[in-house]
Parts: sequence; C-alpha cells; structure tokens
Amino acid sequence: MLDAVLARIDDTLPESLERLMALLRIPSISTDPAYAEACQSAADWLVADLASFGIAAEKRATPGHPMVVGHVSGEGPHLLFYGHYDVQPVDPLELWDRDPFDPALEETPAGKVIRGRGASDDKGQLMTFVEACRAWAAKHGSLPCRITFLFEGEEESGSPSLVPFLEENAEELRADLALICDTGLFESRAPAIITMLRGLLGEEIVIRGPDKDLHSGMYGGPSINPIRVLTRALAGLHDDEGRVTVPGFYDGVPELSPELAAQWDALNFDAAGFLGGVGLSEPAGEAGRSALEMIWSRPTCEINGIVGGYTGEGFKTVLPAEARAKVSFRLVGTQDPAAIREAFRAQIRAALPADCTVEFHDHGASQASHMATDHPAFEAARGALAEEWQTPAAFAGCGGSIPIAGHFKKLLGMDSMLIGFGKDDDQIHSPNEKYDLESFHKGIRSWARILDAVSK
Amino acid sequence: MLDAVLARIDDTLPESLERLMALLRIPSISTDPAYAEACQSAADWLVADLASFGIAAEKRATPGHPMVVGHVSGEGPHLLFYGHYDVQPVDPLELWDRDPFDPALEETPAGKVIRGRGASDDKGQLMTFVEACRAWAAKHGSLPCRITFLFEGEEESGSPSLVPFLEENAEELRADLALICDTGLFESRAPAIITMLRGLLGEEIVIRGPDKDLHSGMYGGPSINPIRVLTRALAGLHDDEGRVTVPGFYDGVPELSPELAAQWDALNFDAAGFLGGVGLSEPAGEAGRSALEMIWSRPTCEINGIVGGYTGEGFKTVLPAEARAKVSFRLVGTQDPAAIREAFRAQIRAALPADCTVEFHDHGASQASHMATDHPAFEAARGALAEEWQTPAAFAGCGGSIPIAGHFKKLLGMDSMLIGFGKDDDQIHSPNEKYDLESFHKGIRSWARILDAVSK
Repeated sequence: MLDAVLARIDDTLPESLERLMALLRIPSISTDPAYAEACQSAADWLVADLASFGIAAEKRATPGHPMVVGHVSGEGPHLLFYGHYDVQPVDPLELWDRDPFDPALEETPAGKVIRGRGASDDKGQLMTFVEACRAWAAKHGSLPCRITFLFEGEEESGSPSLVPFLEENAEELRADLALICDTGLFESRAPAIITMLRGLLGEEIVIRGPDKDLHSGMYGGPSINPIRVLTRALAGLHDDEGRVTVPGFYDGVPELSPELAAQWDALNFDAAGFLGGVGLSEPAGEAGRSALEMIWSRPTCEINGIVGGYTGEGFKTVLPAEARAKVSFRLVGTQDPAAIREAFRAQIRAALPADCTVEFHDHGASQASHMATDHPAFEAARGALAEEWQTPAAFAGCGGSIPIAGHFKKLLGMDSMLIGFGKDDDQIHSPNEKYDLESFHKGIRSWARILDAVSK
Repeated sequence: MLDAVLARIDDTLPESLERLMALLRIPSISTDPAYAEACQSAADWLVADLASFGIAAEKRATPGHPMVVGHVSGEGPHLLFYGHYDVQPVDPLELWDRDPFDPALEETPAGKVIRGRGASDDKGQLMTFVEACRAWAAKHGSLPCRITFLFEGEEESGSPSLVPFLEENAEELRADLALICDTGLFESRAPAIITMLRGLLGEEIVIRGPDKDLHSGMYGGPSINPIRVLTRALAGLHDDEGRVTVPGFYDGVPELSPELAAQWDALNFDAAGFLGGVGLSEPAGEAGRSALEMIWSRPTCEINGIVGGYTGEGFKTVLPAEARAKVSFRLVGTQDPAAIREAFRAQIRAALPADCTVEFHDHGASQASHMATDHPAFEAARGALAEEWQTPAAFAGCGGSIPIAGHFKKLLGMDSMLIGFGKDDDQIHSPNEKYDLESFHKGIRSWARILDAVSK
C-alpha cells in the first residue's frame, strides 16, 4: 500500500512542483498591508487545492489575514496539520538574483533547488504534507486517518489572530496530535522530531542611584554609580563553572535520559563546525556539558542588552542616574518561570547598596515544552523518517521557542510533532531563499511514510 | 595703603558694575560662528578697558577668537592673571526670564544679583581682578607687582588655540605664578584656593566574541556572550571595600598631610547636603574615607558608559557580537597614567575567556596637578582671603580637571592659584545665569588684599 503511494509521489513530482510554483507566485507578504489581497489569493488557492483531491476546506476570516481550515474524516488517530502560507518581505530586493515571486528550479553544485520567497518558509514545507495526502488519496480514494488542516496567514507577522482563533474554534480543531512542518533537518542531513522546546523568561532591570546624571569629577568617589552596581549584580548571576546562581534555578531541570542521550550521541553533532560557523572555537557555558546538551536541554541565563551613561563618540565623564539591562532565561524541564522570576528579582535587590533602587519590567514567560513521546505516534514517525532518510532519526530538542506548539498544548491540550526538511543554507527571511528539491521530494515521501506508520 | 584701595573699591562699586554691564551686553558666544564679531568686540572692549588705567594691552589674533594680552611692569613677583571673555550659548532662550544680553541688577530674597549670560562665567569673575587693579592704580599710580593679563575667547569651545598660543608666546607669558579666576566659593560661603586637581585617564573597551549577533535560542549556552564577559571584567575592577583592584593603582597616592586634613576639617563640609542635593544619603566609594577626601584627594575608577545587545523597546533575545564600555580613572598624587593604563588593559585581557578579543581606545590621560604651596604667595593669599571673608580659607582640592592649570604647568612651568567667588546656584551654562553682587564686590576686595599680601 505504502509502496504504491511512494511510487505515485515519485511519478508525479513534476506536477507537485508545478503546484508549489503556482503558490510561490502569489506574493503573500503578511506584514505589508499592500499585499493583503495576495494573502487572500493564497488562502483561496489552498482551499481550491485541498478541494481538488476531496478535502472539504474553507477560508475563515480573522481580524487579519484568513485561516484555511479543512477536514477529512477517517479511522485511527486524529491529526492536525499546521503550516503557514504567508511569507517574509523581500527587501533588500537588489540582493536577489531573480524576482522573488517568479520562482524557478535551478541547478546548483549541490543539486536542484527551488528558488523563490517562501520556497522553504513555509510554502514548500506546507506542500510536502499536502502532496503526500494527495498521493495517498489518489491511490486509496481516502486518507489513512482523520486529518484537520490549519493554514495560517500571519506567522511572519507575530500571529495576532491565532490565539483568539484557536480559542473560538477549540472544539473543531482539537485533535490527538499536531504535525508542524516549519523546522529543519538536523545539520541539513538527518531527520529529527523536535520534542523538547526550551521556555523563555524575559526581565528588564533598571537600577537608579542619584536623581540626575552627575559629573564624575565633582561626584566621583562618594556617589554611587548605577552602572557599577548593575555590572556587579549581573556578574553575580553565574558562578565560575558557568552555572546560574539564582537560588532554586535548577529545581525541575532533569538530567538527560540514557535513551535520549544515546539518540543524541548517534546524531554525531559537529560542535566544532557549529561554533566555527560563528567565529568561536570552544563551548562556553556550563562546565562539563556538551554543546548540544546545552542548547537543547540545559537552562541558561543571558544578558541580551545593557545600556547606561554615555555611549556615543568620544568620552563624557558622566555618572549616570540609571543603568538598564535585559536578561533572559531559557528554561527546561519543569522549571517554574514565576518562581525563577521572583528569585532573580530578590537576588538583584539583595545586591543593591544604599541609595539604589531597582525597577523590574516583565517581558513575558513561557515554560519549557516536553512532548509526551510515549504516545506511539512518536516512535512510529521516528522509524518512518529513519526509513526514508536511511539514517537514524532522533527526538531532538530546540533551543528556541516555537510558539505554535505551546498554543496547541495550552489551548487545545495536544502535543506536537515538529518535523521539517529545511536546510541550514535555505536563507529563509533573506534574499535568494531556496528549498532543495530533495527536501521537497523526500519531504513528501516522509509524510506518506509517517501517515502510514501512525495509522497502523 | 590697602585700606585706601579697599575704600576706593567700595566707593566706586557703581561704576565697576556699569563697566561689567557693558561687557555683559556683548554677546561673545564662542561656539557659534554667528557671534564671531561679538567676540572681537569683547576683546576690543577689554583692550580699551585695560588701557584706560594704564595697562599696555593688545588684541592678538589666533586661528579662532583673539587673545587679549596686557603687561604692566613692577617690582616683586610676576603674576599672570587668566580669565575668559567668551560665554556659553543661551538656548533654551525661552527659559530665560530676561534677554541674556540685557543684564540687570536684580533684587532677590538672597540679596542683589547681576543677571545675564557670562555674569559669573567668566566676565564677572574676570572683572573682579581688573577692578582691583584699577582701584590700586588709582590710589597708587602703579600696581604693586609685575602683572601679565591673559584673556581667552575660546574657553567655552574647548580652547583650540590656547596651547599653540602658549607655546608660541612662552617667553612673553611665563610668570612666577598664575592666578585663575574661574572657580567658586566652597559651599557658596568660604574662600578657597584650589591647589590639587585630579588627573584623568579615559579608556574605552570593546569586547568581541562571535563574529555576528546570534539568537540566544539557537546559540545560548555554548556560545560566549560578550556582555557577560564585559560585566564580569568590570565588576572585578573594585573589591568589596570599594578599592580599585588594578595592580599598582595606589602607587603614588599620598595620604593627606595633617595640616591639610585640619584645613579641610575646618571647612565643615556638609556631606549630607552635598549628597542629598542629588538624591543620595550615604557616601559610597572607598570604605573609611570621607566624602570630601574622596572627591579631592582619592583616585577613582568609574564606568561612564556601557552598551551592548538590544537596548530598544521590548525584548530581543540576541547574543551580541560585541559589548562596549567607557571607563575613566581620576588620578591623584604622582599616579602614573601610562602605567595604570597598561595595568588596566592587562587586567581586562586576563579576564577574557577563550574566543573573546578586546580592543582598547585611548581617550587621553593627564596626571594630577599639585601646586607647590610652599611658595609664600599661597599662604599670603590664603590669609588675605580669610581676612576679607572673615572665615578660614583652605587649600582645597578639585575633583574635576581644569585644563588651563595643567597647560600653565606643562608649557610655562608655573603653578596656579585657582581662586574664584562663584556660588553653586549661579546657573552657569544654564538659563538665568547670575553673579551675586556680594561675589563681585568682595571678589574685587579679595584680589586687592591678595595683590597686597603677595607683593610684600
């Protein structure tokens, strides 16, 4: 059964590619109001395309760009597939080698690539799933399980309509599991299912001392300098081993399971190449932890911005009235953002000398997400991916946060399998975006295998 | 002899005031090219005024605004008197209660004040010395000693022509001692001669890590964060007692002599009022040192500016490629700026982890100035000031740097007595600048007494 679907995918690849090209020609830039009609057109195109192989789909209005929602009934697990049809702006246009919305298949030394805005992020990835479903339907007359399609048109502009839409349509959209195709291959070569997403806690601190900027000649010595207080407080956030000193910070930070550690080892992460790509040679951070472990499964505390006093050309001997910093924590496991925020604030307050005050600004918080990989679909999908790519697939972590997965968990109570086929050099959000034909072709085949495996 | 001069000063105060008003009416703003002619006029006015009581004076061209140089021969010590005839710009004009260049004598609850731009800084102060000389000449037909007058027209715009002029005219201008009237009364009430000026060393450091800004989700953990490195290095510049940790920093820092300590104690410095005026309640800085001692005679290390990463509204989880800080040191005694610069740089370099580099920018250096107060003129002047103000006068320090004193020392080999009668509320450089009539009147009398005392 699966073999017939895979054969059809191979046979009809040119037609699949033509459809993707048609979608790529629609300039659905969500942040620019000038392209609002193009966003409508892209949604219409998707509704028609789903309908063309029997999916009841419709365009659903939001205060912003529309959602596309489609349903197909079936036996077995109920899956929700999410992708987004909007794309990033194209400027600087002069850095493109071709019209971003006149896509083409190009030969490159590394193979054939589909060049154009949205080729990888996310129209190409979105269509891998649609094409897999189309091939399945063509061969079997129906899909192997119940599927809900949800395509968003505002992902590149902060998804303002998404949460209200999920809340208003929770009953309709709730499924057993979400499939999200907006990520990449591990090191551009190995398939992975992201099952751990770090949480994020943002704080801004403003330390104030004198009630005005002072001259360091007149006041330097007896007057407290808020920059000095700030640097001292921030320097105290890590110990000599690179561990965060905030009391209770490591509560809820799990050690990696031997199974997951073995999967990650098998990925043969090229730490030297990863760091070397940005001009670094040695992992910093927590002593005794590998680079991959630190990115995927260890919490961090970072200073993302700092400013105080005179920062222009030349020199001014000012003792400023205030100094500011933005500090973020990446969270894992069951670390409690609220408790960490309080402990952080208490630590900063305790570091204040006389005459200094501190003001805190809350820049949001989200807990880490850990998918319940004991759901059999996860192992099934992992096996399917390994089969297609002929290389071990891992349950991977992700150092950043992917908000959609958190929304699905919080609002619809479902875990997500984040699977994607993008490569590191796809230049998403940049000029000359591309998607490898291999990513597209094997991506479609991967979804066919996954649909087969999870429906058994 | 002196009494007759003082009596004449009292009798002719209205005329002295009229002359000051005439000078204040000339809008000699040196930074604004639109007022270049006014600067010429002010210089011409001073040449004519000196000539009116027998001083051979002339306007001397520079690449900028002219100098006024006058000479009068005589017995005894050769004094050089320095003042500046240029003034600060007047904006924001709408905050002035009157035309800045239409000066007037105003009654205020605290007494009569001369209101107008330059009243205190520095035309009023400059004229205290000129009027003292005029009264002396009127009573005696000559001055009590040899005097050189040097009036500058670029002090408020950084004195670009001063050093070349001093170098080119060193023989002509060299005297036994310089008198500089551009400072104020101690706490607006007690006369003081500034004999110690702190030096200044400026450094800018740029710490770099990754070769581009990174996303803290993707790289946070194994990637070094230059802001973290910077805050840690800066936090290490002071120990828990507030002392600077740079090796050798305190070499050449003298303890206060018992005599000077006694003079400063007698000043009854209002540390609580000084700090309270800027919203502080406790002296910070070195443990066990008084506020006045810290400002006048202790070295400091201050961070005057810091910047790195994202500092705008909201939040970005960036790991920046670089972070910067501006650091200055106030120096005393015989501290060696070059040695301290090297030791500071070595300390910062030693704090760098792998993959970080540092770039240093030299923002200048000057040693501390200590006047040779064993020259008898210093004690003579101190006695004269105490006599006039009926309160002890002290050899004081100054936390800031007054470049002219350093230039006189370096280029002409002479020490300076910095004596002035400004008050803290004179609003120099600000709208509604004023000079108390008391400052003007007793300032003139003070110079008469000083001329008498140092010439004996």
